[in-house]
Amino acid sequence: MNNTLNVIETRYSCRSYTGTAIEAEKVEAIALAAVQSPSGMNQQPWEITVITDKALIDEMDAVTMDMLSKQEDKALYKRMALRGGKIFYNAPCMFVIAKKPGTDLDCGIVSENIALAATSLNLGNVICGLARLIFDTEKGAEYAAQLIPEGYEFGVAVLVGYATEQEGTPHEPNMKKIRYIG
Amino acid sequence: MNNTLNVIETRYSCRSYTGTAIEAEKVEAIALAAVQSPSGMNQQPWEITVITDKALIDEMDAVTMDMLSKQEDKALYKRMALRGGKIFYNAPCMFVIAKKPGTDLDCGIVSENIALAATSLNLGNVICGLARLIFDTEKGAEYAAQLIPEGYEFGVAVLVGYATEQEGTPHEPNMKKIRYIG
Repeated sequence: MNNTLNVIETRYSCRSYTGTAIEAEKVEAIALAAVQSPSGMNQQPWEITVITDKALIDEMDAVTMDMLSKQEDKALYKRMALRGGKIFYNAPCMFVIAKKPGTDLDCGIVSENIALAATSLNLGNVICGLARLIFDTEKGAEYAAQLIPEGYEFGVAVLVGYATEQEGTPHEPNMKKIRYIG
Repeated sequence: MNNTLNVIETRYSCRSYTGTAIEAEKVEAIALAAVQSPSGMNQQPWEITVITDKALIDEMDAVTMDMLSKQEDKALYKRMALRGGKIFYNAPCMFVIAKKPGTDLDCGIVSENIALAATSLNLGNVICGLARLIFDTEKGAEYAAQLIPEGYEFGVAVLVGYATEQEGTPHEPNMKKIRYIG
């Protein structure tokens, strides 16, 4: 098995980070992988914002958890409380992918390039759709102004950082999802 | 640079295949990479059909090109004619990803895992949204019955095979798509 197949196999959704900052050259290598993604008609319908300001990520985490704590339905808040009380798991780095409307498939490709590049650099990572909740908070408009360029909308985020020792494991692949004609 | 980053960097959309069949173990390794994809809430909202019957791919190609040749707007037909007259570029293998409605992002992730796994095995590949046209042909209902399980819809296809010598090159990444906060 080659390194790429091994990276695909061992990637898992990391939900516990040490918080230690990532070396700049690794962050840049991951960002480069993001913009090397294929896209329909090579339209590259995305914009990538890389947040390495952990104080900002922690603030977004706190205002989002505060909002969730006040919602009538506490299911998500309780799930996050069980996972350590941080919706962004103490990650020191967040890649925010903004996309043109209707380009979710292209956005998914970018998110996987980020996840696999991070894994190849021995960094934990998780594709985080829940990050969209930051735009529903009291500071949502401010975050949107920082993260989502005109004409774009939130696609998905990817959290990246060094995993704590209590790291996760890959899901068992479901081979029944594959059939062959030939 | 590690192997995975190199694979991400060197992947390109291959539009010319020798047609030579791919070794079964490579096809299976790529299919495994597909079902090792992350997905929202681990719902794995996809079904993968791997077509290695080149006669079927060639038939789908022919009926689709025939349909395009009869359309009033000949732009797509002419573009394909310039590229060798085959909408599937003589590829010997097609991965068809069927998805649950509303899961384009997850589908994009799977398509990139397939593309990178194939690249890592020195196989040309291209994510092919145009494959949806086969369902608009006179044999569309027949293809849908073979390829799209109940409750699913066409997501995207990935063509895989050995590239001819006139292979392509990666697009230049656009670094202006990246900004940093930190």
